[in-house]
Amino acid sequence: MTATTIANSMQVSVLLGQNSLGMEERPVPVPKRDQVLVEVAKVGVCGSDVHYYRDGRIGPFVVNAPLVLGHELSGRIVAVGEGVDPERTGQRVAIEPQKPCRRCSQCKAGRYNLCPFMEFYATPPIDGAFCEYVVIEEDFAHPVPDAISDEAAALLEPLSVGIAAARKGRIVPGSRVLIAGGGPIGVITAQAARAFGAAEIIVSDPVADRRAMAKKFGATDTLDPATDDSRSLEVDCFIDACGVPAAIVAGLESVRGAGTVVLVGTGSDTVSLPIPTIMNRELNVTGVFRYTDTWPIGAHLVASGQIALDPLVTGRFPLTEVESALNADLQPGSLKTIVAVR
Amino acid sequence: MTATTIANSMQVSVLLGQNSLGMEERPVPVPKRDQVLVEVAKVGVCGSDVHYYRDGRIGPFVVNAPLVLGHELSGRIVAVGEGVDPERTGQRVAIEPQKPCRRCSQCKAGRYNLCPFMEFYATPPIDGAFCEYVVIEEDFAHPVPDAISDEAAALLEPLSVGIAAARKGRIVPGSRVLIAGGGPIGVITAQAARAFGAAEIIVSDPVADRRAMAKKFGATDTLDPATDDSRSLEVDCFIDACGVPAAIVAGLESVRGAGTVVLVGTGSDTVSLPIPTIMNRELNVTGVFRYTDTWPIGAHLVASGQIALDPLVTGRFPLTEVESALNADLQPGSLKTIVAVR
Amino acid sequence: MTATTIANSMQVSVLLGQNSLGMEERPVPVPKRDQVLVEVAKVGVCGSDVHYYRDGRIGPFVVNAPLVLGHELSGRIVAVGEGVDPERTGQRVAIEPQKPCRRCSQCKAGRYNLCPFMEFYATPPIDGAFCEYVVIEEDFAHPVPDAISDEAAALLEPLSVGIAAARKGRIVPGSRVLIAGGGPIGVITAQAARAFGAAEIIVSDPVADRRAMAKKFGATDTLDPATDDSRSLEVDCFIDACGVPAAIVAGLESVRGAGTVVLVGTGSDTVSLPIPTIMNRELNVTGVFRYTDTWPIGAHLVASGQIALDPLVTGRFPLTEVESALNADLQPGSLKTIVAVR
Amino acid sequence: MTATTIANSMQVSVLLGQNSLGMEERPVPVPKRDQVLVEVAKVGVCGSDVHYYRDGRIGPFVVNAPLVLGHELSGRIVAVGEGVDPERTGQRVAIEPQKPCRRCSQCKAGRYNLCPFMEFYATPPIDGAFCEYVVIEEDFAHPVPDAISDEAAALLEPLSVGIAAARKGRIVPGSRVLIAGGGPIGVITAQAARAFGAAEIIVSDPVADRRAMAKKFGATDTLDPATDDSRSLEVDCFIDACGVPAAIVAGLESVRGAGTVVLVGTGSDTVSLPIPTIMNRELNVTGVFRYTDTWPIGAHLVASGQIALDPLVTGRFPLTEVESALNADLQPGSLKTIVAVR
Repeated sequence: MTATTIANSMQVSVLLGQNSLGMEERPVPVPKRDQVLVEVAKVGVCGSDVHYYRDGRIGPFVVNAPLVLGHELSGRIVAVGEGVDPERTGQRVAIEPQKPCRRCSQCKAGRYNLCPFMEFYATPPIDGAFCEYVVIEEDFAHPVPDAISDEAAALLEPLSVGIAAARKGRIVPGSRVLIAGGGPIGVITAQAARAFGAAEIIVSDPVADRRAMAKKFGATDTLDPATDDSRSLEVDCFIDACGVPAAIVAGLESVRGAGTVVLVGTGSDTVSLPIPTIMNRELNVTGVFRYTDTWPIGAHLVASGQIALDPLVTGRFPLTEVESALNADLQPGSLKTIVAVR
Repeated sequence: MTATTIANSMQVSVLLGQNSLGMEERPVPVPKRDQVLVEVAKVGVCGSDVHYYRDGRIGPFVVNAPLVLGHELSGRIVAVGEGVDPERTGQRVAIEPQKPCRRCSQCKAGRYNLCPFMEFYATPPIDGAFCEYVVIEEDFAHPVPDAISDEAAALLEPLSVGIAAARKGRIVPGSRVLIAGGGPIGVITAQAARAFGAAEIIVSDPVADRRAMAKKFGATDTLDPATDDSRSLEVDCFIDACGVPAAIVAGLESVRGAGTVVLVGTGSDTVSLPIPTIMNRELNVTGVFRYTDTWPIGAHLVASGQIALDPLVTGRFPLTEVESALNADLQPGSLKTIVAVR
Repeated sequence: MTATTIANSMQVSVLLGQNSLGMEERPVPVPKRDQVLVEVAKVGVCGSDVHYYRDGRIGPFVVNAPLVLGHELSGRIVAVGEGVDPERTGQRVAIEPQKPCRRCSQCKAGRYNLCPFMEFYATPPIDGAFCEYVVIEEDFAHPVPDAISDEAAALLEPLSVGIAAARKGRIVPGSRVLIAGGGPIGVITAQAARAFGAAEIIVSDPVADRRAMAKKFGATDTLDPATDDSRSLEVDCFIDACGVPAAIVAGLESVRGAGTVVLVGTGSDTVSLPIPTIMNRELNVTGVFRYTDTWPIGAHLVASGQIALDPLVTGRFPLTEVESALNADLQPGSLKTIVAVR
Repeated sequence: MTATTIANSMQVSVLLGQNSLGMEERPVPVPKRDQVLVEVAKVGVCGSDVHYYRDGRIGPFVVNAPLVLGHELSGRIVAVGEGVDPERTGQRVAIEPQKPCRRCSQCKAGRYNLCPFMEFYATPPIDGAFCEYVVIEEDFAHPVPDAISDEAAALLEPLSVGIAAARKGRIVPGSRVLIAGGGPIGVITAQAARAFGAAEIIVSDPVADRRAMAKKFGATDTLDPATDDSRSLEVDCFIDACGVPAAIVAGLESVRGAGTVVLVGTGSDTVSLPIPTIMNRELNVTGVFRYTDTWPIGAHLVASGQIALDPLVTGRFPLTEVESALNADLQPGSLKTIVAVR
């Protein structure tokens, strides 16, 4: 480890139990071989952080012990482990918050997001990033050009979900895309769809303010599912970014033959899907589970001005106020809340 | 039209209404440009024929007027329309019973099975093949080598569904495949999977006789869904060939990350699917609607002995006894029933 | 045929032999079933037109009889054949100048550009568009929005080549692309690459003026092959748009492992390619032969301002001066020459 | 390292210089973390071993220091490194002789064969397997079922090349395939093509004995390039397994539109290819560089009797006679020569 002067201990915001967060002092971690130590700058609040905080679990993932939340982050490399070029020290980075095994069949097939041995930030029992320092595998600390702010660099994580959805949705120049949900993922995915060349991007949301927001960020049109029927749209691709069963069914029925349906939003465990529609149109229904190889593209799209992440930030809190940040993220009108560690 | 001596009228078995069939004498059709006239030899009974007979409808397709059923057929070209090589007269053929428009975007993209202007045999209001003569577009009358019997040639149609499923399921040498349902489509799809190189083909069926049958035709193993849990199999591909909701859910949950789910069986209109499983494993869920470009491959697989269709025939009836054939098809132990027109 | 008042005869510019063109009066063609009659507006001059004019042949395609050149065109529907919606009369259209058979295996597989029975404008013995009226299959007369000029509409044809190249090159957001040749196809392909999301588009050309032109139309960077070595670029995709053997070899050697090489430019018949480079990097080398399904996307890209075709026009001539147009197209500084029929 | 009793030193056959081999005693290597120690059983002789022996180089790979040849091998695990299940000790294995970095973009995209940091057996400066013990990454030591002999297990390596070629060639049931060269790779690739479902497999070779051999191993037909023209075949896929320029050109010109050309054979550095043929038919020309994820499929195909490797062995030599083995491999009639270490 080649290090500059780094404190021995750091402040960490820890989820102690359902609805219970506290600050702790912990040792600064030491980067192992092929790892880097990153001084955290900004951390975005994700819906999953809020879920763990309020429910103590997300499906099969249960918080049984103290857990550090936060997995959308940017920072600066302050030390490197063995095998890492010491020249990287000082580099601004955006963190891809996962550590696959690199050896299983999924990893070797290029689908490291599906690695059964994955260690992912802020997913029990792996700690996340609401703290002053984190370690990460060197190749998952992606360099960030000056044109991208620390906040936007942190938001390359949710953008990665949008890019993964655009890829799975096979969006190409001229595609017609329907997105259900004008929340943060819907709005970011709309921007990703536009960057992939979609000619029409229709965002469906029952809330007028969110429809207006979507129009500002990528949507070419919007609709209100309470009054507008999307079934005649015959889009090439439907992306669900809300998890509401009725929206998933309506979206699926809006896709032309051989089109794609990409499930991104989390919600109900089971949804009654119209099997004859999937069959008779030979739809391709799939979902997005995190991402592979999205940071460089995301950084390019933001740095070149094709995607704007900074305007999505609707709230900022210091590391000592993570609880307020989590609660702010639930307010109407909120898009992305940032914990500014530094 | 270049013709040999052909009668002016023919016998036709017509569905007059729910549970009502009758024989009629009708004019022999005349092949138009690019069409051929085929003297029908054998016609397989499909579950859809039985559905139209008993229920008068299949989902949105309602029988409102007399309809000729039957769409799995073989025969011999006896006359050709303008633009067709007269040398084809006399050729034994298997019929791909569809007529796409060839001009819409689906047709021009190579997905003519999804043509919205499709005219498909025995689908209202298009007549099928329980009769002595039919016309078909020249390129949908596929030559049949001598090694293939008339009955097997007729059954290239259900085999085409199995081939389409194997393709959609991305079955390649070494694949592990689970098939739900040991009926005719399940058994034929098992054979198709084997021909595509699948290393393991597990057929699930609650009926012991059907499991035994499946073992004779392609399955490497079977399981009883009442007692065996398939969820730990982690197959590459699940093909549903039964339409039973519980089987679809169990099958879907048996697929490894990034694997495929192909819906072939018809049954319930909606099925409650586990959305998190589709998302977290990034499964590819799709369905089969008929087929494109399957007859030449099917004929090769049968002629080369890789797939056996003749042993699937469990009943034979003349054209005047289509009603008996439809009822026979419902008997336990029945696999494929043939109407021998000639 | 539903017609407005149309003259019985029209003026046609005919290639009579090598370097010999003449005006003829010919009957206005009559649209058959599924065809439309188009009053020609603008026709772009293509390098192939110039080749036929000067050499009397392009490879195996030999001009043995009078031939009408010109295949990049826009116009207005003035009459429709049987089966075509009469409402289309009056519609502004861009012509996709090909007529595939729609029945062969290539057509039915979605690759109608490879149809062996293709009838393509201005390719012996099929006449082209340097005349007042043409007929075309209805679905190959693509509607043009008002935002697109007649000249730009004509140039959707070369843009289609660029779009086909971008697709074959698998260009996606973030791709790094090298293009050899700053002529019309190189410059149009650079724009297509940008519209497909390419992050870097490097155009190589030995002529400084053409490099400057490329920078104005899509290129992010240029290089002079006489002095700059592209081999260390490791681009994702190389597109040859010049046909010069040395450029093809240098481009191919500039591609990273598993990248693509797309041959678009015409030139030498054989080129000595480094086989070990193709093998050791598992490059994907392919070519573009015309296009399928490109007009709607091209029209979207032009109407939305992502691609600019109007500024490419460097010369305009009336129908009576096709010879001057063909010669003008060879001048240095020329990009696209237009024959303004109307 | 969990070990059974293993000797401290071993016998190694070393290439000392051009045409010079000698036996050395070296320490038995010690498996590191995630590695296993394998007691070598059988090693196949590859053309590349012969090249290094006779020429001292293969293209850019130059033998500058003593090098151990041999990379087609089977054996038995006799010790395991840290992190490896000790239960694997005693397991019979076939070795995938490569060690990718697992961290570069090619590795993470699933193309570990293109890893620029690859360490591959018997490629300077990495030693190979003409010795008593080797170490390999655990996941590259593939278990071998009892049904596969030690010799066949060693030959899973060249079979992997054939499987990689069949995949790159997109061979599916019904494909028509032309293979140039009836040597070991041609004959093994013919078997792989058959296992992937090819309906026609035509092997071209000027030597009658090799044509006869090909017919015994997978070919459905053969041709003599001196007298038979393959150009009218219009195959779906051409695989070059000889490296002869004239064969590559003739093969490429035998492929139908949109078909594939896979370069496997090594030979001349550059070959004059007909560019208009690649363009006008939109051929997909690519090559095979080693393989990814082929051993399990190969083992299945051999264990199930679909592919026969044992009959390919035409010579056997002990470890002390590697020089004789290398020379034997060059004899006419030789297919695969085995060095039986044990």
